[in-house]
Amino acid sequence: MSRGPVVIEVTRGPLVESRHEGAAAVVKADGSVVAAWGDIDARILPRSANKPIQAMAFVESGAVEKFGLGKEHIALACASHNGEKRHVETVRAWLPRLGLSEADLECGTHPPRLAASIEALIRENASPTAAFNNCSGKHSGFLSTAVAYGEPTRGYIKYDHPVQRRLRQVMSDLSGDDADAYAYGTDGCGIPTLATPLKSLARAMASMADPSRLSNRHAEAATRIREAMNAEPFMVAGSGRFCTRVNGALPGVAQIKTGAEGVFCGMLPGHGLGIALKMGDGAARAAEVAMATLLAHLGVLPADQKDELLHPPVKNVVGLLVGEMRPAKSWLG
Amino acid sequence: MSRGPVVIEVTRGPLVESRHEGAAAVVKADGSVVAAWGDIDARILPRSANKPIQAMAFVESGAVEKFGLGKEHIALACASHNGEKRHVETVRAWLPRLGLSEADLECGTHPPRLAASIEALIRENASPTAAFNNCSGKHSGFLSTAVAYGEPTRGYIKYDHPVQRRLRQVMSDLSGDDADAYAYGTDGCGIPTLATPLKSLARAMASMADPSRLSNRHAEAATRIREAMNAEPFMVAGSGRFCTRVNGALPGVAQIKTGAEGVFCGMLPGHGLGIALKMGDGAARAAEVAMATLLAHLGVLPADQKDELLHPPVKNVVGLLVGEMRPAKSWLG
Repeated sequence: MSRGPVVIEVTRGPLVESRHEGAAAVVKADGSVVAAWGDIDARILPRSANKPIQAMAFVESGAVEKFGLGKEHIALACASHNGEKRHVETVRAWLPRLGLSEADLECGTHPPRLAASIEALIRENASPTAAFNNCSGKHSGFLSTAVAYGEPTRGYIKYDHPVQRRLRQVMSDLSGDDADAYAYGTDGCGIPTLATPLKSLARAMASMADPSRLSNRHAEAATRIREAMNAEPFMVAGSGRFCTRVNGALPGVAQIKTGAEGVFCGMLPGHGLGIALKMGDGAARAAEVAMATLLAHLGVLPADQKDELLHPPVKNVVGLLVGEMRPAKSWLG
Repeated sequence: MSRGPVVIEVTRGPLVESRHEGAAAVVKADGSVVAAWGDIDARILPRSANKPIQAMAFVESGAVEKFGLGKEHIALACASHNGEKRHVETVRAWLPRLGLSEADLECGTHPPRLAASIEALIRENASPTAAFNNCSGKHSGFLSTAVAYGEPTRGYIKYDHPVQRRLRQVMSDLSGDDADAYAYGTDGCGIPTLATPLKSLARAMASMADPSRLSNRHAEAATRIREAMNAEPFMVAGSGRFCTRVNGALPGVAQIKTGAEGVFCGMLPGHGLGIALKMGDGAARAAEVAMATLLAHLGVLPADQKDELLHPPVKNVVGLLVGEMRPAKSWLG
């Protein structure tokens, strides 16, 4: 089943200047592998690419109804966002509904991703707060879940807190694995990130894409999450971002999510498929081209986006086209 | 001679989360290969890692004396700098000595690398100019050379301009190759970047480290460039940068220079050795650890820097230590 690895090339002039290798799995909800490249049994850290899975417990908790939240909050719970104004303001308006504030977020803070957002902060003489953290929506979802269940919120990022235990239960239900048996590291935002076989991650995404084997409770949550990611694509990432572009262009067809260190996940409900890929070197630029290539291979990439997403230009400082990225001929190029 | 590839690992918790492979050559000035990992005959684009070689023609032109320049300008001609105040002001004071201005720089501009430099610009309501380009020192060196020889400066970045032709002549003299026969791409700053066998790049660095076989003119220039890189390490890169740190710590012992897409070069005059390495995926983070590993392997890395440069910590948003980078056991770990 497994063929050669995923290979993405970066050219400059006549040379392939750099080359990225990875693994990818396309799996059905019953666990059958439809396509695989590289070692899909190897364990990877999903990082933020599994946020849609992590949002399941939030939606199932009833917090959305209880606190008067909407699709934008569900999408934001799945997000690695840019820290743009709408992201930050939505988080800041969300937490008081729980009786909480930004001080309750345990994700820490970092400068926002976009230069324009950084510039706005400096001009306002302000510093980024926890709401600017790209994971602040996910963490607001965690807090919402804890409050909905009447649990203490402090320490919600710890492995043994009920919030994190529920994430592992959902992962077990969706993947067929025992996620409590996974080893784990600490993610950028402080929560455990579970050492997951790539194939299991793809199967969990497939279970969300085709929830027919899941409990009604899981199935309903998965459907609402998919719908929210398409309905509020800006909330999932932000201006200029790959996830926002693809999720916005493919309502009902595909829902994708990036993660740090070259991970990417996707759901294709029409095909009943889940996708998980990991670039071995952790390169985000290559993970995007690899995801675009898989979407094209599976026939869902819009024709008008193919060229730019499959062959993103490499430009120099003055904007001259000096190369491109592309899937290698040895893979799906 | 060639053994397995260079391998740098990135861990998180119990897992090697990402893994970088590359090639490295350690060569003497006579072309003999002292050590090699991976395919050192493969052609790579040196990008900015060969700036010390490119500075040779500038120093040999007599421009340093003619325009009253010093070691700081020679170091800046070898630099990929941060666009910090001293870098920018030195370039801005340099160009008028040639009867030129920033408008004559053909490198284009980009925001400076350091957040503090970006913030300073915004607070001054200013935009980055060409002097902020990390290559502005090299380009000022090119302009100085053209003016010193009485050549038109316009188009000095073009393959057939005398400035670029001289760079190829120097490269031929130092490497023993015919650099005019190299294919080439366009570098970030607009000049040709030559498709160079990694071994030849290492040999050219060795010729600068041990210039005994070179003409007096080349030998003197190489010595002055090495001295300038050690004497003005801030000019070669800037605050917090790997090149600045190592070149500042090892006067007379090592002179190293980074390049885009995972290239690194170095000179070890005491050993008479040149180093060139390229990470296949283009990762700068791995190229730094690989260079530190080679310097340690060759016995020149200061003991008090070993731990941090060989095993740089991976921290999460709140500053928690969650992993490290390191040379793999299969390489020199």
